[in-house]
Amino acid sequence: MNARILWLNPVMTSTYDQPIAEALQREARPGTRVDVASLPGAGPRHLEYHAYEMVAAASTIGAIRWAERAGYDAAVIGCFYDPALRGAREITTRMAVTAPAEACLHIANTLGERVSIIVGRDKWIPEMHENVQRYGFADRLASFRVLGMSVDEFQRDPGVTEARIVEEAHRAIEDDGADVIVLGCTIEFGFYRKVQQDLGVPVIDALVAPLRYAEFLADLRDRHGWAHSKRLGYGLPEPAELAEWVPIIQPAVVTGPRP
Amino acid sequence: MNARILWLNPVMTSTYDQPIAEALQREARPGTRVDVASLPGAGPRHLEYHAYEMVAAASTIGAIRWAERAGYDAAVIGCFYDPALRGAREITTRMAVTAPAEACLHIANTLGERVSIIVGRDKWIPEMHENVQRYGFADRLASFRVLGMSVDEFQRDPGVTEARIVEEAHRAIEDDGADVIVLGCTIEFGFYRKVQQDLGVPVIDALVAPLRYAEFLADLRDRHGWAHSKRLGYGLPEPAELAEWVPIIQPAVVTGPRP
Amino acid sequence: MNARILWLNPVMTSTYDQPIAEALQREARPGTRVDVASLPGAGPRHLEYHAYEMVAAASTIGAIRWAERAGYDAAVIGCFYDPALRGAREITTRMAVTAPAEACLHIANTLGERVSIIVGRDKWIPEMHENVQRYGFADRLASFRVLGMSVDEFQRDPGVTEARIVEEAHRAIEDDGADVIVLGCTIEFGFYRKVQQDLGVPVIDALVAPLRYAEFLADLRDRHGWAHSKRLGYGLPEPAELAEWVPIIQPAVVTGPRP
Amino acid sequence: MNARILWLNPVMTSTYDQPIAEALQREARPGTRVDVASLPGAGPRHLEYHAYEMVAAASTIGAIRWAERAGYDAAVIGCFYDPALRGAREITTRMAVTAPAEACLHIANTLGERVSIIVGRDKWIPEMHENVQRYGFADRLASFRVLGMSVDEFQRDPGVTEARIVEEAHRAIEDDGADVIVLGCTIEFGFYRKVQQDLGVPVIDALVAPLRYAEFLADLRDRHGWAHSKRLGYGLPEPAELAEWVPIIQPAVVTGPRP
Amino acid sequence: MNARILWLNPVMTSTYDQPIAEALQREARPGTRVDVASLPGAGPRHLEYHAYEMVAAASTIGAIRWAERAGYDAAVIGCFYDPALRGAREITTRMAVTAPAEACLHIANTLGERVSIIVGRDKWIPEMHENVQRYGFADRLASFRVLGMSVDEFQRDPGVTEARIVEEAHRAIEDDGADVIVLGCTIEFGFYRKVQQDLGVPVIDALVAPLRYAEFLADLRDRHGWAHSKRLGYGLPEPAELAEWVPIIQPAVVTGPRP
Amino acid sequence: MNARILWLNPVMTSTYDQPIAEALQREARPGTRVDVASLPGAGPRHLEYHAYEMVAAASTIGAIRWAERAGYDAAVIGCFYDPALRGAREITTRMAVTAPAEACLHIANTLGERVSIIVGRDKWIPEMHENVQRYGFADRLASFRVLGMSVDEFQRDPGVTEARIVEEAHRAIEDDGADVIVLGCTIEFGFYRKVQQDLGVPVIDALVAPLRYAEFLADLRDRHGWAHSKRLGYGLPEPAELAEWVPIIQPAVVTGPRP
Repeated sequence: MNARILWLNPVMTSTYDQPIAEALQREARPGTRVDVASLPGAGPRHLEYHAYEMVAAASTIGAIRWAERAGYDAAVIGCFYDPALRGAREITTRMAVTAPAEACLHIANTLGERVSIIVGRDKWIPEMHENVQRYGFADRLASFRVLGMSVDEFQRDPGVTEARIVEEAHRAIEDDGADVIVLGCTIEFGFYRKVQQDLGVPVIDALVAPLRYAEFLADLRDRHGWAHSKRLGYGLPEPAELAEWVPIIQPAVVTGPRP
Repeated sequence: MNARILWLNPVMTSTYDQPIAEALQREARPGTRVDVASLPGAGPRHLEYHAYEMVAAASTIGAIRWAERAGYDAAVIGCFYDPALRGAREITTRMAVTAPAEACLHIANTLGERVSIIVGRDKWIPEMHENVQRYGFADRLASFRVLGMSVDEFQRDPGVTEARIVEEAHRAIEDDGADVIVLGCTIEFGFYRKVQQDLGVPVIDALVAPLRYAEFLADLRDRHGWAHSKRLGYGLPEPAELAEWVPIIQPAVVTGPRP
Repeated sequence: MNARILWLNPVMTSTYDQPIAEALQREARPGTRVDVASLPGAGPRHLEYHAYEMVAAASTIGAIRWAERAGYDAAVIGCFYDPALRGAREITTRMAVTAPAEACLHIANTLGERVSIIVGRDKWIPEMHENVQRYGFADRLASFRVLGMSVDEFQRDPGVTEARIVEEAHRAIEDDGADVIVLGCTIEFGFYRKVQQDLGVPVIDALVAPLRYAEFLADLRDRHGWAHSKRLGYGLPEPAELAEWVPIIQPAVVTGPRP
Repeated sequence: MNARILWLNPVMTSTYDQPIAEALQREARPGTRVDVASLPGAGPRHLEYHAYEMVAAASTIGAIRWAERAGYDAAVIGCFYDPALRGAREITTRMAVTAPAEACLHIANTLGERVSIIVGRDKWIPEMHENVQRYGFADRLASFRVLGMSVDEFQRDPGVTEARIVEEAHRAIEDDGADVIVLGCTIEFGFYRKVQQDLGVPVIDALVAPLRYAEFLADLRDRHGWAHSKRLGYGLPEPAELAEWVPIIQPAVVTGPRP
Repeated sequence: MNARILWLNPVMTSTYDQPIAEALQREARPGTRVDVASLPGAGPRHLEYHAYEMVAAASTIGAIRWAERAGYDAAVIGCFYDPALRGAREITTRMAVTAPAEACLHIANTLGERVSIIVGRDKWIPEMHENVQRYGFADRLASFRVLGMSVDEFQRDPGVTEARIVEEAHRAIEDDGADVIVLGCTIEFGFYRKVQQDLGVPVIDALVAPLRYAEFLADLRDRHGWAHSKRLGYGLPEPAELAEWVPIIQPAVVTGPRP
Repeated sequence: MNARILWLNPVMTSTYDQPIAEALQREARPGTRVDVASLPGAGPRHLEYHAYEMVAAASTIGAIRWAERAGYDAAVIGCFYDPALRGAREITTRMAVTAPAEACLHIANTLGERVSIIVGRDKWIPEMHENVQRYGFADRLASFRVLGMSVDEFQRDPGVTEARIVEEAHRAIEDDGADVIVLGCTIEFGFYRKVQQDLGVPVIDALVAPLRYAEFLADLRDRHGWAHSKRLGYGLPEPAELAEWVPIIQPAVVTGPRP
């Protein structure tokens, strides 16, 4: 299957689009084409605050509407808070939608039994903990570990970031009893292979896991008709209301190198 | 204390502003002044879908920013999904913010031990259940009961709505073992006194409860300095970012009759 | 509303009645009149042990019966174990009854998301933890922190106590990830304002919170008819049995300075 | 081992002492001597209300103090609310103390996996559910089933009671998926053998189970030194306070027929 | 990637090997080669009882050892009790291992929010419920629904089985509030497409889901090094002990039609 | 009652049979006769790995079948993972079956409120934690504490082992807030009396507790007909299938010194 995936950075900056496109294409399944987009206009350039998620939410939903019409098989809303995920599933009928926390946690809980999530700042923990609980994994959470870094610091000096991740992941394993590590921000990308090698436990990357999960969901829908249930919480709004109230928003798309 | 409360209907219609203003002013504490506002511009006129919440979220946050500057002591985000509540608390430093589910559930769980929530459609249940769990009350939830009505049907024929609420609340008590009823939509207003009289158990109204809870929170802050903690999940964004990324939105305000 | 509140110290000593009356009257809403009483006769002078609660329980229930007849709008059973709270709600039909743990935890969980409770001795933890779980807040408990002090040591040298509270609250925030502090004993009174100022997070006082919650509950009942549900766990005993088996006990009442 | 067990009916009536003594002696281990006592003085003759528990609590604790001094190896506080159990364990250092809910639930959860508790009235459910949760068995509770009978009706017409128990237990098995039944009141005695035979699942009796559990605990203490831990929640009060504040109360004791 | 997957029927009968091989090959990803095997020797021909799982467990583990040596990329232990899954993960270092309940539940909880599992007999429920809880999905379980059929009845008259599945799944949706259905036995194969079409919600098949999950896990390991963590609960035994104590067992393998 | 108990070491070595037989007979109730057996043939000599449990499982089940026929009143499957316990209960109709974790945790949770389990290696924790959760005691678990020793090291130098147990148990009490200790391996035998004396809290031994629990269960069945429920998860297989698929395995039995 040759899936077309949209990775949507739900922020009003294209800073990370190109590097993420390159990283994703390297990690995707052969045949997958990954496009990367961010939101048009001015606004939040990171989502460390829920208020920023809310400001960017309308455009996020609008871009998801556009993506389904544009023929994508699946979309990833690229922030570890999994913003607007429920809404995105409501308004789509064919395209699969997933997000980093959901994807990382499902994979991590199959590979190990005690998960630690490495976050930038302790500010992030309560909202992320809500998602851990919502997805069912609260009893299997070993800990959150805090790097003491903001989103825009992760890629500034990769050596420093990597060293800090190794340090905290090591503590998660030794002190908190974790057997699998999740990197709790999409911008912690580029580190997982090296950290994994150092630590000897799976290190789940917040770019790669949702990409692969999106491919998987798209394939499940194509081959088996297994799509998000429209029966209850992901039910479709009235078409007329939807058309009137939820504008389609076309983001600028960066296309990864052809597979 | 003479509190000024803003009731924000987080929708792009002023249809309910006047009747809600009247209802609230009747129920408020003497001395409280309640203003009611809805969001400017075109967009969702109800929030039965999470996608609509997301579309309205930026204006909701912007209106909360405006409200704090306008000197309100507390604001209520008037939808039982409690939309954007975390974000609203992040961006405020003085003004208390609450929302219907939080207020109703805290009060209900003090007055009784087994709570049933009367909702319009079963579509609402999963998102509302997440809030019940988040606030800590999942083990004390007796049931959700479904009226089979949309938001805009509640006030169409009040006699019909009231009869349906009584019917489902009665089943909640008899079949599900509830001892307190929560009306799970702000537009189910105007019914609680009569239903309560019929049933003989507390019936918590989704307009009145958050109004009273907002007065209470405003007073706790004024008198004891007990405000939303800025230490963790409600931490304040950087002022420069906040100013740039989160526009202040001034809604049209309906003022209730003077106390 | 001019509420009359009874603060009942459920112990057989009047040692703290006067200072508590003064503290409460300073913190109450204008118009509220707070009376303070303790139990007549000889018996436990503190309730660090459940056995002492049990010895004082009959008088506690009897004093609550008296309080409703005496016309109080609400009563607080003034011990952080919330002793006899269910029984007190059974035998009353008009008067609201609350207690410190219930009030502090509801308020704390609205103001923050991770609560630490500062207790005197680790002996107290299991029973208090049962109450945290019963009220629904177990998943949001950051920690109990232990001062290593008995009830009657708290007011002996206030400077020492305050320093210890600051020390343990600081650890709760830094090491346990708390964003709100609850003082887990009514006799830890007089400290919260200073500690709150030092720490920069809400510090919920076990005298003030239930007082304010009692005012709130009384007002909810007066204005909206929202009283403890008599349908299930707070159901009223047969009047004849109640009259015969539950003696009315009139405590000596200390009245706070007039508002 | 020849254990001496005190069954304490924590009520101010000796109505059931003699029949309970006979029933217990028939069911006890050879060598066990069971005495039965109730509380002296006037007061609650049943404990369907928590307020009544509270009224009887001081005497219950006092009788437990007496029992340890009188040389009993173990005591049962004979009410399915397990009243004053924590306090009873605090004030004893040698004698084991247990109660019906604890004993029945531990045994039931070893014999089956889904437990239903047959109670008299739905009023009892919230307090009993708190105990189910406290002991750890909430996830394994299939249901409470309600007979619609008060405590003093159970022995009035045994044929009627037995038929009702069979009926509700049958529904618990068929409709709620239970595989073991607990009789949720000590005065539902005399029925379990017949009901068990009819239903084909274990029916745990609220007299017999705590008797046998008490024998077991007494034996564990004698032979292995396994007694209630005094380290935390069952810690012993200061001897001087205990002596002053917790009066020893000697109940009238009915002795079962000699083994 | 051309994965080689072993589907292991952990029973001592080859009855279902050929039809399962055909069904799986039809549903597999292009390029995947699925072999199907069952256990050699005499013994349990179905695993409705845990005792039968235990009897077959040594051979199951032995066949997994063989499978890793034989070069398979992933193996599925084909019974909805997920028998011996932990052990299988301990003894493998390269090959992924999964099982139906794990795979179905992860997928179902991504596609919907309230899952019902359609089982043959109520006997199966307690053990399956333990797995639901272990994997983290207990709070999202809507119900178990019982067909009243044994494993070997499912394929006897497919029309009857399908009608019964539709009937119970319909009740799960209407009465229990499910929005996704899981078929709780591998031998309920061949029905999901038709049932899904009738019901309009995803119906997750216990053959197809673990097959697809196995492909996914194999690919994650190949491409990203994400394998079962060897750090804690899936740690590898000492090689010498493993060699001596866990015999390699070569099952007879049925190969599906070439892709 | 003179019970006959079989202690089954579910391993293929008789190394510990004689010392366990002696230890058990010393601790048993007068009149109890304890036989000790291990599994015939070659295979795992300890069960630190789930894979080894699985290899030994068929023989375990077969030995249980034998034991019921041989007239034992109860059997203990002597490993703290409680291997094959469900299966053993399915295939027996008269004989009680229990295992160390079940027995220790029930007793510990009656004697205290916060339990710590002292294990050999952290590898054991995830599987044991599953059992703690299954039996209902997850909320009351203070911690696992790790000795850093394998099963076959425990009896090598008893002084060293005892010192390590005291050290970790002390930390469990001081740092983790435990008030009761469970020794999480049957081969940690011979230490509990001394450790208990040193620590001053109950130390539950994994040999003694299940022995005593087995006696208790046998007695409950004899005297009250309270046996494992055959209604649901412990339901009996079809006799013909059982006879054909579950071989009876006669272990070599070591008989303790006559009581």
